[in-house]
Amino acid sequence: MTASTTLEQSPIGVGASIINVYTARGSGQPLEIMAYKVGPLGDREVEIKVTHCGICHSDLSMIENEWHMTRYPIVPGHEIIGTVSALGRGVRSLAIGQRVGLGWQSGSCGGCEWCASGKEHLCAQEEWTIVGRNGGWADFVRADARFMVPIPNGIASADAAPLMCAGTTVFSPLAHYGVVSSMRAAVVGMGGLGHLAVQFLAKMGCEVTAISSTHSKEEEARQLGASRFIATKNSDELQRAARSFDFVLVTVSADIPWQDYLGALRPEGTLCLVGIPESDLKVPPFDIILPERRVVGGRAGSPGDAARMLHFAAQHGVRPMIERFKMSDLNTALARVREGKVRYRAVLEN
Amino acid sequence: MTASTTLEQSPIGVGASIINVYTARGSGQPLEIMAYKVGPLGDREVEIKVTHCGICHSDLSMIENEWHMTRYPIVPGHEIIGTVSALGRGVRSLAIGQRVGLGWQSGSCGGCEWCASGKEHLCAQEEWTIVGRNGGWADFVRADARFMVPIPNGIASADAAPLMCAGTTVFSPLAHYGVVSSMRAAVVGMGGLGHLAVQFLAKMGCEVTAISSTHSKEEEARQLGASRFIATKNSDELQRAARSFDFVLVTVSADIPWQDYLGALRPEGTLCLVGIPESDLKVPPFDIILPERRVVGGRAGSPGDAARMLHFAAQHGVRPMIERFKMSDLNTALARVREGKVRYRAVLEN
Repeated sequence: MTASTTLEQSPIGVGASIINVYTARGSGQPLEIMAYKVGPLGDREVEIKVTHCGICHSDLSMIENEWHMTRYPIVPGHEIIGTVSALGRGVRSLAIGQRVGLGWQSGSCGGCEWCASGKEHLCAQEEWTIVGRNGGWADFVRADARFMVPIPNGIASADAAPLMCAGTTVFSPLAHYGVVSSMRAAVVGMGGLGHLAVQFLAKMGCEVTAISSTHSKEEEARQLGASRFIATKNSDELQRAARSFDFVLVTVSADIPWQDYLGALRPEGTLCLVGIPESDLKVPPFDIILPERRVVGGRAGSPGDAARMLHFAAQHGVRPMIERFKMSDLNTALARVREGKVRYRAVLEN
Repeated sequence: MTASTTLEQSPIGVGASIINVYTARGSGQPLEIMAYKVGPLGDREVEIKVTHCGICHSDLSMIENEWHMTRYPIVPGHEIIGTVSALGRGVRSLAIGQRVGLGWQSGSCGGCEWCASGKEHLCAQEEWTIVGRNGGWADFVRADARFMVPIPNGIASADAAPLMCAGTTVFSPLAHYGVVSSMRAAVVGMGGLGHLAVQFLAKMGCEVTAISSTHSKEEEARQLGASRFIATKNSDELQRAARSFDFVLVTVSADIPWQDYLGALRPEGTLCLVGIPESDLKVPPFDIILPERRVVGGRAGSPGDAARMLHFAAQHGVRPMIERFKMSDLNTALARVREGKVRYRAVLEN
């Protein structure tokens, strides 16, 4: 039988014996090179030679232990693109040399209701690429084959990297919460996530409004597909947009005036959080009960979601705006991201 | 042409010239009888002779001006059942003597996107039966024919009354938020709304858990269709039910520990508010983002929703548990409702 023949084979390709990584030994520390030995590849594992990796704000949050779950030394990096260098003997979905991406999630139980439904990100045993594991600021990365997503030919690797987290984080909720082309959508925040969300929504056929603190990014937002722009600082533009949107995607990580954003929703409208504010959201009951509004959480979805996002991005030319850095210039790149100077995503190259 | 012939006709039936109502002249006042003259019936209006009317907690809130929108003197009552006594000359959907119900809403613009979609309750110009109009604690009531819903033969009028608000308030969200039979549902609060919600969900085929402060209503909840019961007072039963429910319907009007209730949701689960808490909901961002949970508001839906609810209730024998009072014993009934002694809904009879 084919299956047992496959299982009897040895790992395919020559795996690395040493992996070099960039690691932070504590909050506020610069990242430094470290090398560690690795053993044999697991049956269902894949090893990739990393060519590119993005810098996401979650990497910074983890380096600084903002979410109280960092285990030092940490190897960040979860917008990983590479080519398959070795395959576990049970992996039949990928081939040596194939270009794949790995995002925030790199493991799950594989057998629960959620895994069985293509919703591995909802598995109670999900594993995250940079929590208790080594991420992509490295020369090689290993993970379960199910989380290695093939990259369509039309997308350059440097562009594909930010799609693996920022891209799927804003694209997955559009599918999960039923966004369709007749809807009026707003994107709060024009950063790494927001500038991709504007493109996805515009290419889906939605009317898109970009919402930012000032008008400084208006021209860029319009070029990316926004037909309307709202600046919130010292302005009542948001209040004047009451009852305007079917879907508001909040990509910023800040305590924004929730009541104003709820008020900007049309009946049956959805306020979707993908950024993580510092405090609890405050939701006035009448603002959701009378107009039947929804407050929901969104996140990078499953490998299936990522595959659909990549197909859509390839088909419609959705690409991140990036700044490239050599992996060895990592600390310089990190400083620019911390200062909010990057428009809109930093990508490291090996 | 039929339409113009109809429009040329006079109103059908003999409308009342005087309507007797029970009215509160201010917060904390007992209700007293008042009579007022009425003019000719509008073309699209219907007059009904009230036979039954429920007492809803919203009536109490309005009498006490808790929502700061009461205009005294107020005539409460928005779970109204009666027989058509007069029809405006443009009304073709109803007949004299027909039994109909009128709930929370009694008007809308009739032409907007929401009205045109059978979602009149989301119309920006919706009118409420007891706000700036006279409700059903009266001998006659007039309203737009579109909001008069025919009552199926199988449902007694005294039972139909609470269905017109309590019933559709808990039934409509199940349809609007996609509750299906494979789901595990919980109902928070075993009162006028909750005891109907348990029945609707059980008859839909859902696994139903009733959640109440103590176990005092457990036996009744199980008889109504709950297969599980959680008491929250001095207990960790709710905390132990983490990740248990696809849909939690909150029928109580209290500031409950939102994080515990969110935690009780499975991935993709929905927390639906139909009761109105005193303060803003507090929603911890990670609790909705990681498991893709939803916090939504639900309410009595449109006349179409009410018609579907009544059909389902007739088909499946869903009935409220009621205490009957003569309309003239209104103040006695109100006192019992205020004291929380009624199991589970008071109905006034003319």
